[in-house]
Amino acid sequence: MRTGIATVCLAGTLREKMQACAAAGFDGIEIFEQDLVTSPLSPEDVRKLAADLGLTLDLYQPFRDFDSVPEDLLAANLRRADAKFRLMSRLGMDTMLLCSNVGTATIDDDELRAAQLSRLAHLAGDHGVKVAYEALAWGKYVNDYEHSHRLVDLVDHPNLGTCLDSFHILSRDWDTAPIEAFNPEKIFFVQVADAPKLSMDVLSWSRHYRVFPGEGQFELAQFMGHVVRAGYTGPVSLEVFNDVFRQSDVERTAVDAMRSLIWLEEQSAAWLEANPVPAAGGVAGQAAGTPGRRRYPMELATLPRVAEPAGFNFAEVRATDTAALETLLGQLGFTSNGRHRTKNVQLWTMGHARVIINEEPAASGTVATAGAGTAAAPAVSASISALGFDVDSPVIAAARAQQLKAPAVPRKSQANEEIFQGFAAPDSTEIFLCQGNPGGTAAWTREFGDGLEATAADLAGGGAGAVIDHVNLAQPWQHFDEAVLFYTSALALEPQPYAEVASPTGLVRSQVMLTQDRGVRLVLNLAPLLQQEAPAGMSGTTTAATGQRRTYQEHVAFAVDDLVATARAARDRGLDFLQIPANYYEDLDARFALDPEFLATLRELNLLYDRDADGEFLHFYTATVGSVFFEMVERRGSYDGYGAPNAPVRHAVQYDHEHELTRRS
Amino acid sequence: MRTGIATVCLAGTLREKMQACAAAGFDGIEIFEQDLVTSPLSPEDVRKLAADLGLTLDLYQPFRDFDSVPEDLLAANLRRADAKFRLMSRLGMDTMLLCSNVGTATIDDDELRAAQLSRLAHLAGDHGVKVAYEALAWGKYVNDYEHSHRLVDLVDHPNLGTCLDSFHILSRDWDTAPIEAFNPEKIFFVQVADAPKLSMDVLSWSRHYRVFPGEGQFELAQFMGHVVRAGYTGPVSLEVFNDVFRQSDVERTAVDAMRSLIWLEEQSAAWLEANPVPAAGGVAGQAAGTPGRRRYPMELATLPRVAEPAGFNFAEVRATDTAALETLLGQLGFTSNGRHRTKNVQLWTMGHARVIINEEPAASGTVATAGAGTAAAPAVSASISALGFDVDSPVIAAARAQQLKAPAVPRKSQANEEIFQGFAAPDSTEIFLCQGNPGGTAAWTREFGDGLEATAADLAGGGAGAVIDHVNLAQPWQHFDEAVLFYTSALALEPQPYAEVASPTGLVRSQVMLTQDRGVRLVLNLAPLLQQEAPAGMSGTTTAATGQRRTYQEHVAFAVDDLVATARAARDRGLDFLQIPANYYEDLDARFALDPEFLATLRELNLLYDRDADGEFLHFYTATVGSVFFEMVERRGSYDGYGAPNAPVRHAVQYDHEHELTRRS
Repeated sequence: MRTGIATVCLAGTLREKMQACAAAGFDGIEIFEQDLVTSPLSPEDVRKLAADLGLTLDLYQPFRDFDSVPEDLLAANLRRADAKFRLMSRLGMDTMLLCSNVGTATIDDDELRAAQLSRLAHLAGDHGVKVAYEALAWGKYVNDYEHSHRLVDLVDHPNLGTCLDSFHILSRDWDTAPIEAFNPEKIFFVQVADAPKLSMDVLSWSRHYRVFPGEGQFELAQFMGHVVRAGYTGPVSLEVFNDVFRQSDVERTAVDAMRSLIWLEEQSAAWLEANPVPAAGGVAGQAAGTPGRRRYPMELATLPRVAEPAGFNFAEVRATDTAALETLLGQLGFTSNGRHRTKNVQLWTMGHARVIINEEPAASGTVATAGAGTAAAPAVSASISALGFDVDSPVIAAARAQQLKAPAVPRKSQANEEIFQGFAAPDSTEIFLCQGNPGGTAAWTREFGDGLEATAADLAGGGAGAVIDHVNLAQPWQHFDEAVLFYTSALALEPQPYAEVASPTGLVRSQVMLTQDRGVRLVLNLAPLLQQEAPAGMSGTTTAATGQRRTYQEHVAFAVDDLVATARAARDRGLDFLQIPANYYEDLDARFALDPEFLATLRELNLLYDRDADGEFLHFYTATVGSVFFEMVERRGSYDGYGAPNAPVRHAVQYDHEHELTRRS
Repeated sequence: MRTGIATVCLAGTLREKMQACAAAGFDGIEIFEQDLVTSPLSPEDVRKLAADLGLTLDLYQPFRDFDSVPEDLLAANLRRADAKFRLMSRLGMDTMLLCSNVGTATIDDDELRAAQLSRLAHLAGDHGVKVAYEALAWGKYVNDYEHSHRLVDLVDHPNLGTCLDSFHILSRDWDTAPIEAFNPEKIFFVQVADAPKLSMDVLSWSRHYRVFPGEGQFELAQFMGHVVRAGYTGPVSLEVFNDVFRQSDVERTAVDAMRSLIWLEEQSAAWLEANPVPAAGGVAGQAAGTPGRRRYPMELATLPRVAEPAGFNFAEVRATDTAALETLLGQLGFTSNGRHRTKNVQLWTMGHARVIINEEPAASGTVATAGAGTAAAPAVSASISALGFDVDSPVIAAARAQQLKAPAVPRKSQANEEIFQGFAAPDSTEIFLCQGNPGGTAAWTREFGDGLEATAADLAGGGAGAVIDHVNLAQPWQHFDEAVLFYTSALALEPQPYAEVASPTGLVRSQVMLTQDRGVRLVLNLAPLLQQEAPAGMSGTTTAATGQRRTYQEHVAFAVDDLVATARAARDRGLDFLQIPANYYEDLDARFALDPEFLATLRELNLLYDRDADGEFLHFYTATVGSVFFEMVERRGSYDGYGAPNAPVRHAVQYDHEHELTRRS
């Protein structure tokens, strides 16, 4: 599959965009007119730069408001096209995108339109270039890709073809199957964009909220499957208007974009395999074949396939002063398994839940894509720095991640030590792929303490069945969509519809990423912007404007079988629980009519409660250390949530507590 | 008019919100349930705090999903209501908001609904409280305020009435005139919210994009006029769900909110005066009166009325090193009028365009509402620090601004010096109200140089007719809506539909604020977020992530009669023009088919060009000093824009130029 991207997707100057596209591995680019008009590079400079970078210049775009106009305006439009065709010759480009008319169309007549398009096609032919006609979703008369294709057929000129843009097709819910019947020689170009399903006017949706494939909710693999079956072999090019990407680091966004096409290519191949062409009376242009794998003119590369991770292997918290963390974990019922034999890290376990406390400062340069992430800076006293996932084959999973351009994280290892395959997530959390064991044990734990592998059987009390239930990571706003694609493509987690939670400092967007069997539950939290304006590290800083202490908190949640017993034992060990207001329990009673004794227990132990049609959820939180706290949960029945109705209580109490600290200091 | 606000409008804890509301001067508040549930304050604490702060507790809200349900669910709902009524007694509150059912309604039967509401009203009566029933715009069966009012009439119980919320009514485009016929004793509460006209689902629109009155596009004065005519005398309370306000400084947002109600009160009085009740066969519940001013049960306070400002009196640029600014102004054709006799400021003039260069550092504490604004910090080498406006009566205009809670700016003056009435805009630009003179002169200019008032006649060359055409101010994202209301209410500028302009670092939102006669054109620019993440001052800083130099630019544009002559003279004086790429002129020619000689002139002088149905626009830009640059424009015909199609060129070239500086350094 030939990969492409429109320059409008990226921030920076035309030169910067082209360099970033080449570095990310794209085959070619679309030149967005405004990027050329505003550039000091001459057309000849651009042509040479592209050649030097090994990029093809695939599409000049857009040319607007041409068809369906009176004759005098048509003459002006042809003159305008002529100027652009001459420009394209200087650029060495052969295809121009023509959008269906939005602004100046006044005549709704397909015959007239075809005649006008025919004159444009002839003019293009004179210049040796081609025109790819696209039906904009909000085109005045032409807003359906089948309509634009019918016009192309009507004109029947070798220099006029169709451009298919997934956004304009899927935003209108058009059926994509008819693409298969198109003559592939008439499909001049294919653009792909994903988008979240929003109910707003399609123009605003298109101009601001498009995302790269895998970051939205469109059925792009199916769209591509039909395009491939039609016999199209040209570029598959990203055209994504997105307010965030436009202002993000250009090199990083280009890599994110490339990852989305690599993933889409794999998904398209999978869709084709899962949807064999009907055996008889098949689609036009295709000989009816045997079901199953078959070859198409476009070759689709695939990635090493991996099963979804079985669970969390460990969570690592980096801290400059570890005493407070050790106290919290001990009070929660975790056992210290001593220090690593060569590294300055400790292992704490409870059942199969493992927490590594890392006292080593983050190596600068370890995380290739740091940016505004949460990598531990000196000022941060504690943050979640790494997560381990249980996978069938760490080597294959790592190869897959690498092909998806995940930046590798080197971890120094001594002889006889487990080597982890690791890479950096977009928020710069380090992700390690660990060999999952059937018993849920981990061989690397022998590198700690007395050299014995910690097993569940070693543990006393109610924690034998403990596991990491979910991990909640704070995400910088510039990299939220990138993170969704990263975990989707590299770790096979499935994004769920997101929720928004009220906090005293604004709405927190909460995006759950799941494996199908719920072995891994990862929650990506997008904090309010003002919380993100603190300097790097994003934690524990005081903003000048308000004197408020703002944090950007993350946490690890552990599931146990008997939360009340766990909480009682923790209380007896002196745990600093997050204190839940009395008003909460009155509201809980009003909502659920709980048994008075049970309600008293909840209140006594600062437990939170939720109930839905599937089951019940009990949980409590610890105090916060640095930007990290812990949660203990018990799932009853088939409860599949995270106690979302209680999240505002947590946020408010944490905010109040920080405030109290600020007032005292 | 009794003023109120729902706690959900504001950031912070319940205590912080209440304190901020009291400080801003509200009469009462609505308690949003979640704010109480998450608070450590007991209901009795809240009641006492409100009393201590002098706030009434006007509405407990919301109670959801009560009506249109089967009997078993109704019983549970009544139990839930009973718990809330008991809570309200502890709070000392007498009115609860009931929203029409969205989630659990299954029976669409007005008689059943009325019967269920009647049972709730009786229960409320037992507790001595009242229920205000509101039709949500997205209510399952009840989503029209007239429908909810019919149900209230059907129930006919003293403890059940209507809550009218402007958002739920105006978002659905319901006619508001029927409100006048309502029995005022059945209107228990009135909530007001404004909103921009967005085409999206009404729930998302409501939950994220509401703004305070005057910051959106709803006809709120008319809505309020009907409410007043109906005879309503209760609180007029803000209920505004807004993603930005939720995370902004609570005290500041409360003042912004209060300003919106003061302004709405004035606008409502003006609407009533402009729309007298018909003389005969009038509205039910109203005796037919004589047209013109009449009294209603609700008293509406008004503000000192002022005419719109006639023009800019001056623009002031503050700079740590003024040499570069002096050079630019001199090359543009400005004349130095020397220094002020007591202050460290210079006056430069060209026709009626006056620029003050201020070398004095910004006094800390001068700008009461500084926040993340653009007040000059030591690192900033130049920024627009103040604007003077010509008004009929500075004293009356200042009194108006003061009543609208604009923070006053004290300017020290010596004897015999003009005293300016000044206040701080939300971005902390200082706004001064100056006595407008018919000849466009300014008496204060005698305080400069040789003590002679500078007049247009003093000036040679083409600059005699020069004026400040527009000023473009960068706005921090947290205070954008506040700025729109500020200039609307305090200076009578009219907000225009906003535009979005592409720049290499993201989309720039550009909001024009105008006087009707175009004497004042102010453009508020909302820069991309990443540009705003630089530390205070927002200019000239280098971000760690990219090594890019980011600025947050502002400018003053001067209009002249002959731009080509002005540009030629400036070129001869060695002006550093913003260099426009050759590609721009090719595109211009393709679009407009310009006379070759004219095109050559544009290219030669780095002039930009725009044309529309009203006329033509020629302009050029200077290089940037600190975060400030200048623009010269010529308007031909009735051209009323700002050359928006050229803005991306300016942004790109400025970005490229900064980049070049960064690469060299």
